Formats: sequence, structure tokens, C-alpha cells
Amino acid sequence: MKTYGDLNPSPRTILTPGPVEVDPRVLRAMSFPILGQFDPEFTTLMNETMEMLRHLFQTHNQWAYPVDGTSRSGIEAVLTSVIEPGDKVLIPIYGRFGYLLWEIAERCGAEVVTIEKEWGRVFDSSEVIEAIDREKPDIVAIVHGETSTGRIQPLADIGAACRERDILIIVDAVATIGGVDVKTDEWMLDAVIGGTQKCLSVPSGMSPITYNDRVEKKVLRRKKIERGLRDQTPAPASMGRTVQSNYLDLSQLQDYWSPARLNHHTEATSMLYALREGLRIALQEGLEPRFQRHLLHERALVSGLEAMGLTFYGDASCKLPVVTCIEIPEGLDGESVRSMLLDAFGIEIASSFGPLKGRIWRIGTMGYSCSRKNVLHLLGALEAVLLRHQVDVRAGRALQAALDIYADKK
Amino acid sequence: MKTYGDLNPSPRTILTPGPVEVDPRVLRAMSFPILGQFDPEFTTLMNETMEMLRHLFQTHNQWAYPVDGTSRSGIEAVLTSVIEPGDKVLIPIYGRFGYLLWEIAERCGAEVVTIEKEWGRVFDSSEVIEAIDREKPDIVAIVHGETSTGRIQPLADIGAACRERDILIIVDAVATIGGVDVKTDEWMLDAVIGGTQKCLSVPSGMSPITYNDRVEKKVLRRKKIERGLRDQTPAPASMGRTVQSNYLDLSQLQDYWSPARLNHHTEATSMLYALREGLRIALQEGLEPRFQRHLLHERALVSGLEAMGLTFYGDASCKLPVVTCIEIPEGLDGESVRSMLLDAFGIEIASSFGPLKGRIWRIGTMGYSCSRKNVLHLLGALEAVLLRHQVDVRAGRALQAALDIYADKK
Repeated sequence: MKTYGDLNPSPRTILTPGPVEVDPRVLRAMSFPILGQFDPEFTTLMNETMEMLRHLFQTHNQWAYPVDGTSRSGIEAVLTSVIEPGDKVLIPIYGRFGYLLWEIAERCGAEVVTIEKEWGRVFDSSEVIEAIDREKPDIVAIVHGETSTGRIQPLADIGAACRERDILIIVDAVATIGGVDVKTDEWMLDAVIGGTQKCLSVPSGMSPITYNDRVEKKVLRRKKIERGLRDQTPAPASMGRTVQSNYLDLSQLQDYWSPARLNHHTEATSMLYALREGLRIALQEGLEPRFQRHLLHERALVSGLEAMGLTFYGDASCKLPVVTCIEIPEGLDGESVRSMLLDAFGIEIASSFGPLKGRIWRIGTMGYSCSRKNVLHLLGALEAVLLRHQVDVRAGRALQAALDIYADKK
Repeated sequence: MKTYGDLNPSPRTILTPGPVEVDPRVLRAMSFPILGQFDPEFTTLMNETMEMLRHLFQTHNQWAYPVDGTSRSGIEAVLTSVIEPGDKVLIPIYGRFGYLLWEIAERCGAEVVTIEKEWGRVFDSSEVIEAIDREKPDIVAIVHGETSTGRIQPLADIGAACRERDILIIVDAVATIGGVDVKTDEWMLDAVIGGTQKCLSVPSGMSPITYNDRVEKKVLRRKKIERGLRDQTPAPASMGRTVQSNYLDLSQLQDYWSPARLNHHTEATSMLYALREGLRIALQEGLEPRFQRHLLHERALVSGLEAMGLTFYGDASCKLPVVTCIEIPEGLDGESVRSMLLDAFGIEIASSFGPLKGRIWRIGTMGYSCSRKNVLHLLGALEAVLLRHQVDVRAGRALQAALDIYADKK
């Protein structure tokens, strides 16, 4: 049989819009021996994780816990638990991940109506509110930060409008949580899904979510207890239609995360250790200083790229601070540049999807990856690689511009 | 704000039927810095993991890869991708996890028919085959090793009968994979789901699955490509009904695991590192020696418990080698014994579910936890704790009996 070598990954500077470098403290947390899932020490760690998630989501919601799966599992858990077949769901789309909401909502049996904005821009809140008043949906689902286009959608007015009309609003904040303000309660968002592998700098594999009692009420109407756990008592008459997933059924997940600890899945221990440590790091830094750090390094990166003479993609007024998109110069093979950055410099940046494939590069400055060292390393490397590809960049200026930003800061 | 302490879990000897202790080599693998999901180094690790999974499942199937979620996510991924609403699914049930298959299949819209065996026993193959001929299902779904009762269901004849009748058979081998023979191809199993946190000694959070071209054919009829990835080409006319989950849709997952690497989720990097290392360890030990090791320590454990005077639960002829169930002596508070084992000795054993709650203890001897050191440690501790609870056990005999087994071995 073929033999397989020791794990020995090359060191990488990861400046994609996720996954990004994992904080070494988080890596260390994952190397601790595990505890059993009902060990009182472990359930204490679960409870602490819930408390810290409430801070992260800026909410007083009772429910804030991770779903065991990648970010997409958290999105699907919320959508599939909330959407009953026939529910009308309005999805304003301004990039790839809006389409994902559509795909999932459709599979949940929703009657989906969409409004679309050309990629690179976001909606005026009034456009969304008009669509709400026209379509009268039961639910609005929307992306907060679109990594595919590098845009951020303001949500405060849309959230308030939904609350006023008694409509549920579900927000994909996978790309923004921990890097940009996500004010769950203040913006009146009913359910929010975060990601671990972006601004939290925890590996992919868990998806933190939060939801309020408006959502819980709907979920509980659909609750069903597993036969294998029901003892002799008969199944309660379910008032709503049972959620079509067992694994992603919030009514079961919240029982598992409640003091009752009703057995559902086996909690992913090492990932829970990782998430708990990632949250500790974020809260020790403080949310506001953390958001300011993301803005500072974005400013340095943008100044450097501008000084190099590169063109930014998209509407600057709604730029997502943690993702910077640049147009690939005409005639240049963007993948060749990405490969050389990876092979020679150990730096990874991303391309994009669908209509933007081959047209833009995307640079993420998220979490632990969002540092002066990384920004400067990338600017120097990108300049060299572009020169190597005979692109006419203004040599030597990018790093000076970035260093100016950092000097101003002091 | 409250502050949260450094992670500092107590050392535990985990002898439950999962999760069990994680191999230290696996813990170390998780502490390596991550790679991006499309980094060629990472996709190589993904491919190696697929190769090793084929060995583990004893199959030549093209598809063998992990689903990013706990074991239950793998079960649901297979069931939800294969079952179309209205499909007739036969589920022979002999413990809690058979009920879980029922729950999930029902949520997939299956017409479920069940046959049930009193807990503590398994089916004669002929009973299942008779039910197949009576019910003429499209699919049979069955558990290989029931941790709730500690029984193992022989599958070779049932698999052959299904193939002969062109029925798909889906097997939950979460508890057996890596500890007991699971002969996917020889037994003609169409899809098999394994677990990481049991006999592989990898943390919970991934579920390795395999399936053959009979399953793939059904899944591909239901394929749908996400709008956000479709470029300009229109959606292909889907021949089957779209899978109701996006996250757990095998047609999308296999595209992500194929050379096309069509973006779906962001692979859970650190868990993939863990699984790859767990597989390396299992294959370096060798499957057959590994199964023999599990049998040896089971024999020592059983001898010790017998010598102590405890009574085993269930039909001995179908005992699952990696889980040993004992009846809680009449009038004794089983939870008090479990607590004292944990608090004083750092050992965790399990109780059970539903009708067996409070009636039996379950001791797992799985993967890295399945060792002489652990078996001896448990027997000594259990004797002391039972004596402390005024249970009339034959003091001093258990360890001698176990040591006899180990001495014979030499």
C-alpha cells in the first residue's frame, strides 16, 4: 500500500476573503485532549461560548450557539427551520451569496421573490423597503457583507422596516462578524449567521448563529422529539410542518444547548475549543478596537494599491472594509499572478465567481491575517509579480504609501 | 465584562461509546497552521484522505470523502440525497439509532416501513429479507453497530439480497468503522456512513461516507448547479426532484471533491488534517491487527466484569465488540456511580437512552481509548466505586481475570 507522509504544510500568508490564517492561540487550543460531550467541564465551556457569542453578535438573545458544520450549514439551519413550504421569502441579491440564499430557500419550499442589484453595488434601503411593501413577504433574507464583490449592505433601516411590518429578517453575516459592526439587537435583526474562518480566525467547520424569540416562536411550532429519545410518551401534536432536516433543526439544536442537554449530535469538541478561544481573543481585543484595526489595515492596503496604479472594482461608497477587490489589468492572466504569489512568496489571494471570474482579484484583510506585516508583505510581493508580468506599475510607491498610513497612525 | 479563563481541560480516560480519547498524533495535526482550501498542497491532502478512506471502507468506490459535520450529518447527507419523496424505505430497528434513520427518512418524504426487534437483540438476515420481499422497498436503511444496546447486525446476506432485487442499501457504520470489519464491496453495501469520534479517535465534526455508482446514478438525476456559479449557461433540466438540502447534497459535495473542485462549502481544514492523521494511524496499524486489538481488550474487559460478578445486558451472540453493556445492579443509582468514576478517577462511562436509561451502563473500547492501560484502570476503579456504593462485588478478582487474558496473549 502507498504510504502517506507526515503532515507538513508550507507556511502561508493567507489574504483571501476566507479561510484566513488561524490565530496560533486557537491552533494550540485544538491540540488539547478532549472531554466527553456531557462532561460538566465541557458543558461549562459550551455555556461560556454562548455567553461570548452574545457579545460578538451584540445581542441579548437567549440563543447564540454554533452549528456543527461550515458557515453554509448555519445559513441552512436558520432558513430550513424558519421557512415553511409556501412561505414567501424576499431576497435582495447583489452578489454570489445572495444566490445561495435563494438556492437554499427554494429547497426549503419557499416562494422566493428576488430583487437584484448589478454586482459591485448594494441597495438603497428604500429600494428594499419598497419591494417589501410590494411583495409583502413573510421573511426577508439578505447578505450583510458580500465577499464575491466586496460590498457591504447597510441593514439598520431594513431591519426596522421589517419589525414594523412584523416580517422576519434573516442576515448572512458570515463575512462581517468579528471584523465589522453587526448590531443584531439595535438593527432589529431576527436571526444572524456568522462564520468562523473569516474575521474570527478560527478554522472552518462551525457556524455561530443567533436568533430572537420571534424566530424561536416559529421554530417551536414545528418541534418534534425523536422517537429514540421519547421514552413512552406519545409524540406531541405538531402545530407546524416538521423541519425537513433533522441535523439542522434549530428546535432540536437549542434543546441540546439548553440546560436539558437533550442528546442530538455529538458536539465537535476540538472545534468548540477553537471557537471559544477565537471568541476570547476577539473580546480581549475589544470589538471596537478590533473593527478599527480592520479599518486601519484596509486604509494602508488601499493606499498602496492605489499608489501602484491599480483600479478598484465596485462602488467605493459601499466597500466592505475586510475585502478589497481590484480589476485584473486588461490582457493579463490573473491566475498566473496568483500562482506566482503563492509559489514564490507563499501568499494566497483570491479570484472571484461567475461573471467576475478572471476579472477581479479579491484581497481579504480579516482577523489574524489583518496585520501590518501581511499588508506590507503583500504589497511588495504583488508589485514584484506584476513587474515580472510586464505590467506597467509605478514601482516603489505602494510600500511608501502604506508606510505613510502607518506613520500617520502613530 | 466577565473574563474567561485559559482552556485547561482535566485529563480524562474516556470509555464511552464515543466520543473517545483523541490520538495525540491527531491532536498535534490539528495544531498545524492552515492552508487555503484551493491551495494545491491542501487539495493533495484532500485526495490522500479519499484514498485512505477507500481502504478504511474496504471499497473500490470512486466516492469516499468526509461530510463537514458530525456523524449525523453524514447519515442525513446520504439519506436526503438518495430518498426522493414517496420512495419506500424499509428500516429494521433494533435500538435508538434505527429510530434516527426513521426520523431522518421521514423528513426526506419517504414512505417508511419498519420492522422492530426487541432491544438487546438483532435480526436474523432471513427476517429482514422476508420483510424486503413483503414490502418491496426502494431502499433499505440499517444500522451496523448499535451503540445504544451494544449489538452488531450481520449484513452480508442482507446486502446480497438487496443487490439481487436491485434495492439500494444504506448502512450506518458510525460505531463500527475502524474497529470492526466493514466490508462495503464484499457485502454489497451501496452507501456506508462512518464516524470519526469513535473507533478512529478523531474528534467529532466530520463524517466519512462512501457510495457506489448505483447511488451516484440516483443522485446525479437530481443534480442542480447553484445560480451563483452557473455563469451564463441556463440551468440544466433536472430529471429528478432537487435534493431538499443544499449543504448535504451529495451531487454538489462530489463536485467539490472531484478534480473540478466546484466551490461549495469551505472545507474544514483542521478537521481534515485530523481525519487524514487518524486514517494514517489506522492504516499504519493495519485494519486486521486493529480489529484484533479491539477484540483482545474487549475480552479482557468482559472477563474482568464477569469476575466481578456483574451481569451483561443483551444477547451475547450479537455483542458489538467495541461496546460492552452491563446491567446496573437492582436498587443502585447508576448516575452516582458514573459521577464518582468521573470525579475521583477521571474515567467516563455512559448510560443509555429511552427504555435503557438508568438500566444499563455502556463501556466503549474504541480506537485510542481501547488499550490495556484503560481497561485495567477502569476495572480497578469500577470495583472500588461499587464497593463504595455497598454493592456486593467479588473484590480483587476483576483485575486478575483481565491480567490472565493479557498473559495468555503473550
